[in-house]
Amino acid sequence: MGTDMMTAAVLNKPLDMELMQVPIPNPKEDEALVRVYCIGICGSDVHYYEHGKIGRYVVESPLILGHELAGEVVQVGNQVSHVAVGDRVAVEPGVTCGRCAYCKSGRYNLCPDVVFMATPPVNGAWAEYVTIRSDFLFKLPDGMSFEQGALLEPLSVGMHAMKRGRVSPADRVLVTGLGPIGLLAAQAAQLYGVGEIYGSDVVPFRQQLAKEIGVKGVFDPSKENVKERIEQLTEGEGVDVIVETSGNARAISDAVTTVKRGGRIVFVGLPAQDEISIHMNQLIDAELDVYGVFRYANTYPAAIQALQQGKVDIEQVITHRYPLSRIKEAVEMARTQKDTSIKIMIYPQMKD
Amino acid sequence: MGTDMMTAAVLNKPLDMELMQVPIPNPKEDEALVRVYCIGICGSDVHYYEHGKIGRYVVESPLILGHELAGEVVQVGNQVSHVAVGDRVAVEPGVTCGRCAYCKSGRYNLCPDVVFMATPPVNGAWAEYVTIRSDFLFKLPDGMSFEQGALLEPLSVGMHAMKRGRVSPADRVLVTGLGPIGLLAAQAAQLYGVGEIYGSDVVPFRQQLAKEIGVKGVFDPSKENVKERIEQLTEGEGVDVIVETSGNARAISDAVTTVKRGGRIVFVGLPAQDEISIHMNQLIDAELDVYGVFRYANTYPAAIQALQQGKVDIEQVITHRYPLSRIKEAVEMARTQKDTSIKIMIYPQMKD
Amino acid sequence: MGTDMMTAAVLNKPLDMELMQVPIPNPKEDEALVRVYCIGICGSDVHYYEHGKIGRYVVESPLILGHELAGEVVQVGNQVSHVAVGDRVAVEPGVTCGRCAYCKSGRYNLCPDVVFMATPPVNGAWAEYVTIRSDFLFKLPDGMSFEQGALLEPLSVGMHAMKRGRVSPADRVLVTGLGPIGLLAAQAAQLYGVGEIYGSDVVPFRQQLAKEIGVKGVFDPSKENVKERIEQLTEGEGVDVIVETSGNARAISDAVTTVKRGGRIVFVGLPAQDEISIHMNQLIDAELDVYGVFRYANTYPAAIQALQQGKVDIEQVITHRYPLSRIKEAVEMARTQKDTSIKIMIYPQMKD
Amino acid sequence: MGTDMMTAAVLNKPLDMELMQVPIPNPKEDEALVRVYCIGICGSDVHYYEHGKIGRYVVESPLILGHELAGEVVQVGNQVSHVAVGDRVAVEPGVTCGRCAYCKSGRYNLCPDVVFMATPPVNGAWAEYVTIRSDFLFKLPDGMSFEQGALLEPLSVGMHAMKRGRVSPADRVLVTGLGPIGLLAAQAAQLYGVGEIYGSDVVPFRQQLAKEIGVKGVFDPSKENVKERIEQLTEGEGVDVIVETSGNARAISDAVTTVKRGGRIVFVGLPAQDEISIHMNQLIDAELDVYGVFRYANTYPAAIQALQQGKVDIEQVITHRYPLSRIKEAVEMARTQKDTSIKIMIYPQMKD
Repeated sequence: MGTDMMTAAVLNKPLDMELMQVPIPNPKEDEALVRVYCIGICGSDVHYYEHGKIGRYVVESPLILGHELAGEVVQVGNQVSHVAVGDRVAVEPGVTCGRCAYCKSGRYNLCPDVVFMATPPVNGAWAEYVTIRSDFLFKLPDGMSFEQGALLEPLSVGMHAMKRGRVSPADRVLVTGLGPIGLLAAQAAQLYGVGEIYGSDVVPFRQQLAKEIGVKGVFDPSKENVKERIEQLTEGEGVDVIVETSGNARAISDAVTTVKRGGRIVFVGLPAQDEISIHMNQLIDAELDVYGVFRYANTYPAAIQALQQGKVDIEQVITHRYPLSRIKEAVEMARTQKDTSIKIMIYPQMKD
Repeated sequence: MGTDMMTAAVLNKPLDMELMQVPIPNPKEDEALVRVYCIGICGSDVHYYEHGKIGRYVVESPLILGHELAGEVVQVGNQVSHVAVGDRVAVEPGVTCGRCAYCKSGRYNLCPDVVFMATPPVNGAWAEYVTIRSDFLFKLPDGMSFEQGALLEPLSVGMHAMKRGRVSPADRVLVTGLGPIGLLAAQAAQLYGVGEIYGSDVVPFRQQLAKEIGVKGVFDPSKENVKERIEQLTEGEGVDVIVETSGNARAISDAVTTVKRGGRIVFVGLPAQDEISIHMNQLIDAELDVYGVFRYANTYPAAIQALQQGKVDIEQVITHRYPLSRIKEAVEMARTQKDTSIKIMIYPQMKD
Repeated sequence: MGTDMMTAAVLNKPLDMELMQVPIPNPKEDEALVRVYCIGICGSDVHYYEHGKIGRYVVESPLILGHELAGEVVQVGNQVSHVAVGDRVAVEPGVTCGRCAYCKSGRYNLCPDVVFMATPPVNGAWAEYVTIRSDFLFKLPDGMSFEQGALLEPLSVGMHAMKRGRVSPADRVLVTGLGPIGLLAAQAAQLYGVGEIYGSDVVPFRQQLAKEIGVKGVFDPSKENVKERIEQLTEGEGVDVIVETSGNARAISDAVTTVKRGGRIVFVGLPAQDEISIHMNQLIDAELDVYGVFRYANTYPAAIQALQQGKVDIEQVITHRYPLSRIKEAVEMARTQKDTSIKIMIYPQMKD
Repeated sequence: MGTDMMTAAVLNKPLDMELMQVPIPNPKEDEALVRVYCIGICGSDVHYYEHGKIGRYVVESPLILGHELAGEVVQVGNQVSHVAVGDRVAVEPGVTCGRCAYCKSGRYNLCPDVVFMATPPVNGAWAEYVTIRSDFLFKLPDGMSFEQGALLEPLSVGMHAMKRGRVSPADRVLVTGLGPIGLLAAQAAQLYGVGEIYGSDVVPFRQQLAKEIGVKGVFDPSKENVKERIEQLTEGEGVDVIVETSGNARAISDAVTTVKRGGRIVFVGLPAQDEISIHMNQLIDAELDVYGVFRYANTYPAAIQALQQGKVDIEQVITHRYPLSRIKEAVEMARTQKDTSIKIMIYPQMKD
């Protein structure tokens, strides 16, 4: 390694994050050490940075954030065989037990014993290096960038939403909320073969980016009746699936009355309040399907496969790039300028 | 036929129903004429009888109610081949178009052009005879009674709920609301191989009948914490599926917080109010599946198959039996004595 | 119409087809009359032309072939509402009963009473006009050509194969046989989000076209070990799904030993002989899924949706174009020059 | 423990098995030591006993056979929490890695690194004690016997076949081969709610037991045309699903031509020869689904749930019971008297 120490961004308490020299972690026998080349800033990172907690998860001691990353394997434990030093890899940041009923039945995202990066007290990867159990590393094919590799994490939420919502090329899809998750969900819908994707958001910058990505009709729910607009554009057919990523209470309520009869709704965005009013008669009478989405499972290989078709460019959601040395500036931008930034990327190996 | 007239119970206006002589209907070329032997009273029948409408459906001219029936084929149109005069049959009471996207994809219960018995302005079958398109007739195997045949209709709602909820022998199931639909849903769960069925209702008579049917744990939600009781009885595992049949607002809300992580909820009972408060964070974070149920599709052959195993006795839900001549008395009982009656059966061929 | 007669290509007996003036059919009350603009030549058309029969279906009286078509609605029966005169439409050529258990459960392609164009004794549409029940017409969106509309029929076989094989972006897919159905199946896989598609065929012209369409690795099974080549290209992962379209006995046998453990095989191509030797121990031990495909169901709306993404160009499979007046020349080319033609299109409104 | 040694049946070479004193295994930190109360003799055990190998698995050093067992936990490693000393448990005998793509996606039965009892070189449990990773232990509810617990293993094959074949109460099912797996598959079908189960076997003793278990029609394929008999009994409907457990070449071939159009076939029984002739045109034209079955996954909790309904008695398949001291006699009976024995049980704690 040449040195035993590395630079990492450590959150001491809300709004107090500093670059520190910390020991490079040692991989256990089933782990790999990864040199981090590219890592995103996620809304949850910003939330911990600002509030020091999310729900029951509280930052009680200094914590390294960050969990959307790709890099290069630089060391492996002696039981590791499926990746090797020099491999370019994406990192799936939650390590699951493999033994509970959820894990055994293919829903490992619900594993109660998951160890997830940047969820207190587990350190994340806004750092030069990170260790992870090797079965959560996925080789990047030639031609796939570290940026794409890092974006596999938020894209996975979108891919999982498609799978949960049984989305197929037969569907028209509306994505409500066009932040990073919403835009990547729209691209996931493209990867799943959806030809007519609609989107809604109140922020013009996001609306614009959605159009560039190929969203066919973009609506401003503060100014337009989204249901009526969709009826017009689809000759009365409506949308088969709504993927709700905003967490906005009205968007959540409206989803039930907007989707077509027999349609499906996938709820991804967590609302600020617990209780939301839902038109249950409509949900029942129209025989809707409603699916919650919590993280993802088994999405990395699928996403890597699908991106190789080369027809969807997920890097379009990256609006800003920073070296690790300017991480604080980057996080402040993510925190304060949501209307002009989507996905901000950090490059721990980049010199300023 | 021997005569061209038959006795039918005609609802003139709310609470005003009388027995009348009306013409026996003539089957069209693809229809059969069925002599009605047994027909149930459904909650919707009682609601039309009492209020003259359900939602957007209004009784605007005299109407014959009733849609849960079995009988014998006595005449067929010249295009009818799969049933013959003398066949004992159950009647599926909604005739669908067979041509819309819903019909073609196997969800004919969502057909916008369905013609459903006892839904204004379509007459039902509280009468001596009724006609129906012959593909909605299902032969009763030897040994299956007309009562069972008539109960296939409400049982179908339960069977459809199982299919919608992907219920399998792997599941623990809670049925909330133990009226006719709830009890038959519990029996449908038995038919689907569920070994641990729980139930909840505030009415002692219903609780008792549920126990007799084989519901393992029956709770009174007005006196017990259902979630805690289930946790105790299942060693912390909880229930995989909740089938909500009560339409009660609190039961609907509680379902989301009671089902286990990764669980499924099937909503069957229509609530009186439109908007119900739902804990959306739980629905999302626990990655629940929520399914609405509107009537049923493709359930009659399945129900007939399953009942032949002979291990579930759906006639247990019948608490009262009346000839058609006492239909008014029967309907008044259904309307006013919900705490001591479950399913009331009418026998149009029975002499008083 | 201006005239009551139209030109049609009538097959009198094998190899004896002539252009004749026949009456323009009159649409029934639930039918539309369609002016045919573009219609493909299918392998089954060529087989009837050459042999006068396919299995149990025998051409016993003069027959009009052709069933892959798009055109314009020029007249509608008085019960038709969802298409209107002037609509550009694709035609799904099999009219099903809507009443049998297959139709009601969403598998109408298995309807025993289907009336399918160009399957004796039902006339097809190598003619200027054709009538069809209006629910089998699908409006073409602006920007979708008649060629695309006509290709929806063979593409539907590929789309149905994807649905049967539960293909998703997570899969690597091998298509064996790269004729019209194979190439369109490869494009259907692209529409379903598959990034790594492999193909095999012995004909160089087809191999070349497959590469142009975006098939990642194209193999010649007469010269290469397909399984080994795939192992190399996928780092030992293998393919998740094989779609067999050739009907070749060896390709069928090899599919079972080539697909990965836990994989799926979709058999589309009908072999010339009935009995084929299969390695059943492998099928069982590797826990494979095997699916037959017979035509398609519910694919037209899905295909139209998916093609609107604009990332897959199905017209690439068209190699030749003829006016109806040269139909015999066109069919002879399809019959005798399989190594240099893929899909040949006929234009009944084109003047020579 | 009182002693460090235990009695075990050790296979030295084909037909040479002796009772020996061997060390009681020590549970690792995530394992439990189980006192074996009841353990079945499986066909694979008999095959190893007789031939010393099955396919690529060869007994190269002395081996303890047996893998269908239930017992009591007598010691646990220090990381074990979900079972405790004194618990009555069933043992799922294959320990999987939890980290490969198969394990992560819920198909852990395809894990390439599985360690499966009584598959060389892994010892099984024809012994007084055995150790196993604790997540493969399942508590037996009060009222469930050790016999039932041991039978969960072969029943699991049947349960897995039902899941693979998507069997539901809507289906008519034919089980071909009525040995232990076939009879338990028939009972699994009952647990899945199937009302009409048919069976076929050439052995009268098995036919008789099938009838006692509730199989509606039992056929002798050496004397009857099974397809015709089923057509008669089902009024031409046929069976929706065939579960083939015999491994007989003709039974395998016939399945494809016997199941109804659109039906499903689940192949469980491994044939003696590799290549079997299959009517592929029928498989394709009738759009069949064919599923291989290799062991099982996630079946133990489901089986335990389902059996609690108390309507299916799997102990009916037990025909003989022996103490461990008479294991050789028991295995010889299993080997030589297949026509009069079904499931033979060994009781390692029973005194002779």
